[in-house]
Amino acid sequence: MHMREDSNGIIRQAIAAVQPDAAVQRALNGRDFPDGRVILIAIGKAAWQMASTARQTLGARIHQGLVITKYGHAMGDIPGVTIYEAGHPVPDAGSFRATEAVLKATENLTPQDTVLLLISGGGSALFEAPLISWDESARLNEQLLASGAGIVEMNTIRKRFSKVKGGRFAMHCLPARVYAIVLSDIIGDPLDMIASGPAYPDCSTAEDALRIARKYKLCQTDEMQALLRVETPKCLHNVDTIVTGSVRELCHAAANAARSLGYTPQILTDSLDCVAREAGGFFAALARYHQQSESALALIAGGETVVHVRGNGRGGRNQELALAAAQGIDGLAQTAIFSLGSDGTDGPTDAAGGYVDGGTLQALRAKGIDPYDALQNNDAYHALEAVGGLIHTGPTGTNVNDVTVLLIRR
Amino acid sequence: MHMREDSNGIIRQAIAAVQPDAAVQRALNGRDFPDGRVILIAIGKAAWQMASTARQTLGARIHQGLVITKYGHAMGDIPGVTIYEAGHPVPDAGSFRATEAVLKATENLTPQDTVLLLISGGGSALFEAPLISWDESARLNEQLLASGAGIVEMNTIRKRFSKVKGGRFAMHCLPARVYAIVLSDIIGDPLDMIASGPAYPDCSTAEDALRIARKYKLCQTDEMQALLRVETPKCLHNVDTIVTGSVRELCHAAANAARSLGYTPQILTDSLDCVAREAGGFFAALARYHQQSESALALIAGGETVVHVRGNGRGGRNQELALAAAQGIDGLAQTAIFSLGSDGTDGPTDAAGGYVDGGTLQALRAKGIDPYDALQNNDAYHALEAVGGLIHTGPTGTNVNDVTVLLIRR
Repeated sequence: MHMREDSNGIIRQAIAAVQPDAAVQRALNGRDFPDGRVILIAIGKAAWQMASTARQTLGARIHQGLVITKYGHAMGDIPGVTIYEAGHPVPDAGSFRATEAVLKATENLTPQDTVLLLISGGGSALFEAPLISWDESARLNEQLLASGAGIVEMNTIRKRFSKVKGGRFAMHCLPARVYAIVLSDIIGDPLDMIASGPAYPDCSTAEDALRIARKYKLCQTDEMQALLRVETPKCLHNVDTIVTGSVRELCHAAANAARSLGYTPQILTDSLDCVAREAGGFFAALARYHQQSESALALIAGGETVVHVRGNGRGGRNQELALAAAQGIDGLAQTAIFSLGSDGTDGPTDAAGGYVDGGTLQALRAKGIDPYDALQNNDAYHALEAVGGLIHTGPTGTNVNDVTVLLIRR
Repeated sequence: MHMREDSNGIIRQAIAAVQPDAAVQRALNGRDFPDGRVILIAIGKAAWQMASTARQTLGARIHQGLVITKYGHAMGDIPGVTIYEAGHPVPDAGSFRATEAVLKATENLTPQDTVLLLISGGGSALFEAPLISWDESARLNEQLLASGAGIVEMNTIRKRFSKVKGGRFAMHCLPARVYAIVLSDIIGDPLDMIASGPAYPDCSTAEDALRIARKYKLCQTDEMQALLRVETPKCLHNVDTIVTGSVRELCHAAANAARSLGYTPQILTDSLDCVAREAGGFFAALARYHQQSESALALIAGGETVVHVRGNGRGGRNQELALAAAQGIDGLAQTAIFSLGSDGTDGPTDAAGGYVDGGTLQALRAKGIDPYDALQNNDAYHALEAVGGLIHTGPTGTNVNDVTVLLIRR
């Protein structure tokens, strides 16, 4: 069980190292706001943690606060702050209701007012006021999640059908200023994409949106086609933005944690974006070659893989990646591969990700589970659950994308 | 053009370093054969080169010789040796005719006779005497190549329908001895899989074959189901085997060549076996992260990726891998990714593989080519051809699987 214990240790240490608290404090300390009201709006899976730190730092300077986070991610009351929980990855009535409350709290502001906007990943689903019917919006999101489209592509589409995405929320806050602190969960920190960029000029164009809609056969109605053609704001003069957190920090945190356990870490990439199960196969190939290594190794990749949903099982991209690696490392002693989302949730499951080692395939077979069949049915969750291969962290308070680690002990 | 020149230099040097000549000489020098006849049988894409070296080494000691290689791979006459060219990757009438000639030349042998069997990759298609009709056999092979099955899975199926595969050729040679020299083109050198193991006890079972047939929905007729259940030889007492060549040697050869051009090489794996285009995406992710590297780098992977054929374009796994990497390295200076088959042919094309660099995506767009569309149509060949991204080596005389290289210059 050494490999599993080491994995858990690395996960704990890495998650602790990428909490947003210190970064939010740094961004607020010594910061002068205009004399008017400060309205705190926190959106995303890390919204509670970020808002809590901001409230502690600014105290009563905050006039009013609203948090929108995923169900189960609120960790208690915050004085003067209303906390909403809502649907993710598919927005629901809770998302729309909470977003209307935010829009109401930020209307009729003055140039002396400040909207302190704390953004983290998950905001695309949690913060949404659609320009189309709720039904159409829900259907579009289901299509997007099943299409295999990357998050950049999904958000390019989503922001065309929204009152708040693609810089439109910052326009709504005018004439107040918006001070945005962004915890990045997208590779390369594209500010127009994180939470669909509610306060950032949108660099995606109507042309991009039309191309993506064609590629995945989306948005076939005339009304939707018309909305795809409406341009989003290309410049915003009332916004200051600070970016903090990144998958690169997560990779370095995992590397440091692995080093503290005696592994020699190597970061392979911080922008992994290929199909989850194939990334798993690639990691298994790395594992086989490095068996000859003399020292203990940790090979690390950060990023966000994609899943083409074809089956009707349960799972997430990290669970698929791990399960797909099980066959390729079958029988390898002291070898483990794990992958997880730093936010603690992987796909629509209660697991953060998956863990496999050289004994996993045999354990699966003993339970009568064929990993190939499980992957074909996108059912990595139940396969890993049967062999103790799920990683459970609960909501972590942060959200800086995924990390995959190959460990080889000596 | 530095990157392309460096790539070509690495390709030339690596291919030269993995020629089978020296290995065949080593295996034959000082080798005592019994007093009877020595029948030379050389099969595979490297058959001509191996046979030529054997003839030079043993001279008139060879009583009779037959070579079966792929069309275009014979490089001239060899004294006393009959040379056949045949179909690959799909066997054709040429394969069956040549195989019958080999079976005839090796019947009625005595215990004093030796069959010197030189095996290289490609033999599965080139050396074939089917137990089912030619039509059924051709149809099965088409199904296999389009199924996305790995070469191990394909060969497990093929050998059940063959008079020569899975150790059956060695049984045919009895009571003569078989001395086999095998140039490996499969990850891990599984001797029962290379050229479908004509002289090696078959470790795949009828059960394996039935499982694979189910997985890919193959062999539905009763006759074929019955043949799937016939076991292949599990021990052979008349065979000695020497294995030479491996994808690991190819990786080391590429690493040495890269080092000689000033790159610091790192071998990532010698058993890459995931989907070609996703391996390309993974390599692009490696390229993006290592942009910050201070020294020139060469990251190298050997193995054999797979392609799920869905379109009707032209291409091969190495071309798909390279084309799939083009978008992910768009705009990166001094960065190139190339991938090729060491035998000089990639899929059913005249190219050995593909090359892309930071300028490839723009070049494709300028020609009106969308790499995503080209990949969807499995048409990497025409896309790469349009931008000078094909690698042409012609038949190389060797066959030790594929190598993929990421170069970053400084």
